[in-house]
Amino acid sequence: MGKSYTIEITDNCAGLAEVDGFSLAGVACDIRNKNDFNRLDLALIKLDRPCAAAGVFTTNDVKAAPVLTDIAHLSLTQTISAIVANSGNANACTGGEGLRDAAETCAKVAGAIGCEKHQVLVCSTGRIGERLPMEKISKGIAEAAACAAPTKENGLKAASAILTSDTKIKVVCAQVLCNGRMFRIAGMAKGAGMIEPNMATMLCFIGSDADASQSTIKQALSYAVGKSFNRITIDGDMSTNDTVLAVCSAKSGVKVEPSTEEFEAFREALTKVCRELARKIVADGERITKVVETRVRGAKSPEQAEKICRAICNSLLVKSSWYGSDPNWGRLADAAGYARTGLDFSKMDLFYDEVPVLIKGEAQAQNKALWKSVVSKKEFVITMDLNLGDFEESLLTTDLSEAYVDFNKGE
Amino acid sequence: MGKSYTIEITDNCAGLAEVDGFSLAGVACDIRNKNDFNRLDLALIKLDRPCAAAGVFTTNDVKAAPVLTDIAHLSLTQTISAIVANSGNANACTGGEGLRDAAETCAKVAGAIGCEKHQVLVCSTGRIGERLPMEKISKGIAEAAACAAPTKENGLKAASAILTSDTKIKVVCAQVLCNGRMFRIAGMAKGAGMIEPNMATMLCFIGSDADASQSTIKQALSYAVGKSFNRITIDGDMSTNDTVLAVCSAKSGVKVEPSTEEFEAFREALTKVCRELARKIVADGERITKVVETRVRGAKSPEQAEKICRAICNSLLVKSSWYGSDPNWGRLADAAGYARTGLDFSKMDLFYDEVPVLIKGEAQAQNKALWKSVVSKKEFVITMDLNLGDFEESLLTTDLSEAYVDFNKGE
Repeated sequence: MGKSYTIEITDNCAGLAEVDGFSLAGVACDIRNKNDFNRLDLALIKLDRPCAAAGVFTTNDVKAAPVLTDIAHLSLTQTISAIVANSGNANACTGGEGLRDAAETCAKVAGAIGCEKHQVLVCSTGRIGERLPMEKISKGIAEAAACAAPTKENGLKAASAILTSDTKIKVVCAQVLCNGRMFRIAGMAKGAGMIEPNMATMLCFIGSDADASQSTIKQALSYAVGKSFNRITIDGDMSTNDTVLAVCSAKSGVKVEPSTEEFEAFREALTKVCRELARKIVADGERITKVVETRVRGAKSPEQAEKICRAICNSLLVKSSWYGSDPNWGRLADAAGYARTGLDFSKMDLFYDEVPVLIKGEAQAQNKALWKSVVSKKEFVITMDLNLGDFEESLLTTDLSEAYVDFNKGE
Repeated sequence: MGKSYTIEITDNCAGLAEVDGFSLAGVACDIRNKNDFNRLDLALIKLDRPCAAAGVFTTNDVKAAPVLTDIAHLSLTQTISAIVANSGNANACTGGEGLRDAAETCAKVAGAIGCEKHQVLVCSTGRIGERLPMEKISKGIAEAAACAAPTKENGLKAASAILTSDTKIKVVCAQVLCNGRMFRIAGMAKGAGMIEPNMATMLCFIGSDADASQSTIKQALSYAVGKSFNRITIDGDMSTNDTVLAVCSAKSGVKVEPSTEEFEAFREALTKVCRELARKIVADGERITKVVETRVRGAKSPEQAEKICRAICNSLLVKSSWYGSDPNWGRLADAAGYARTGLDFSKMDLFYDEVPVLIKGEAQAQNKALWKSVVSKKEFVITMDLNLGDFEESLLTTDLSEAYVDFNKGE
């Protein structure tokens, strides 16, 4: 039986401005304290009326003030009126003062647009351990609230204002046709492996004109994040500020409830949007030269597959060899082995794209030239088959370049 | 009550040649197939008679043929007559043929010196996935057996023959005086983070003239390895070949049995020897510029302390900032947090050497210049106090340099 819905994805779009119900703004208020008002650094997402929202947050023990604030607000309310996000300062490791600054940021937005303070969510990314410049933030909020509009230009400005070391904006839009009715899901994100010069934070904001409740959004979002943002790794570090928020304006009138075709379509489109944004984040990783998808299949359990994926993708030796276009399968086998999941090397198959590297633990040296040509590409796929079971996981990652180290060595 | 023993450590020595009962050789047999007979690549440690021995091996799921061979041999015998080790080829991921090559290597040594084949242990380090050049190995064994001698020159030659990308030999000797009687423990090692150009293998051979049984040696060795080689990390990778072997010739006549002062002295001296060799391995890590000891104290459990230590020491962002002499405490707090052990940032103290960086989660910014001067040094200590309990662990590690990536990028 075919699906009763179609999903069309495009990244030639203006992010959340593509979706009915969302007004946007991106303004420059010099949060970096560099007297640079050329750089947009505060984004506002404003809803016409309170809308259902849900979030997924970093599981780091050290959570930044805006993360703690949003978790608290979403436990108080099912609907929100605005999201405010700044780049340049993470408001992380800032103690009680940081929490007060985050609360004041929400209060300023609430005052400017006329809503309850806890119906505002706040995100920050950038330097850690420094107080937010609240006077500048306040001015920025006033300006953003005044100019917020559902225009493409403003959608692009908002997508730009959340960037740190990203080299480009990351937006994507899905148009879903289900049982003859249309709704949209759009997203904007900023990247991981971003350290300007401090933190690797991933932020993502998603808007839809579908009509879904907080719990329905939460359910679909948790699934989508598990299949996308939790399946990428650049340097293995997880930030104090990582946040994904999704809001539904209901403007399309399409009702999305669990166990319906609409829900299936919504969840799949949301997953596609998140996957596309995740891919953009990896491809724009700091000073990377390659994007590598690592698939581990034939595992005894999903956990085994994931552990091995992560060991491979976070191995400095593996990543360095990719950087050098060196088809060094020994490092892959070694990393898979030290995940200590109980694999059997004599059963292992390995492929670079479609080219056999190992069959049952035996190197297919006749393919050596082909191995090299695969790992010399800018994008390729590593497939490791453990031949132990039926489970599979994959992870998208990058190489490790000298420039990465140079870029991250700091002061 | 004071200790009834003294331990004197020196690295100005000839390794195992300092200990009665050990004959040594290091010969060149061009295992790298480069027509280079200038480079020593096969070491032989020969005992006057079968001596008690024990080993600690990699826990990688993918174990190289010599590791599997040694584990099998040590389950068959309590005493050994020789250890043979080669550099240049790891005999790893070589399947049944690799196991036969390892067995044949042992058989050749047994034939040359006159002992049972299972009384020979074998170690290999170097390229992965390639067959050992058995003809060259055989010639090398014959030569080594013929010239093995208990001389300092041969001790240094053996220590040299096991090196791969190490820049210097690593030897140390402990002289122990216990209840008026003397015994010695000496060791030689090659480094981790060694990839020439394939694998990161750590090998260590220890010889003593104490009189201890296999199980006594095993007990002391497991303890010593836990306090030394398992407390270092350069790139977090664990090799298929990592091996530590210890042999006791009994020539001193000093009996070492559990629950005696002699055992306490033996275990402590063995631990010191291993720690000193571990420190040499880290300091000689590939293209590193800094050695950093990370201590986590005030933990709820040893596991929490160790997890946080490892998260910090394996963070690319932390290691990159050390390389740049950037006192970036935010990355340390972030890494500690994503170990997800349940820490409370508002209780965390952090010190660079003795300089306070954080006190109860508050940055001590007045010390900024001092932070910088500490992390600019070639060696420094990071102390993180979680203030949650009484447990402590430490780890010795390095920075991550651009040259590391360049060196490891391979072909």
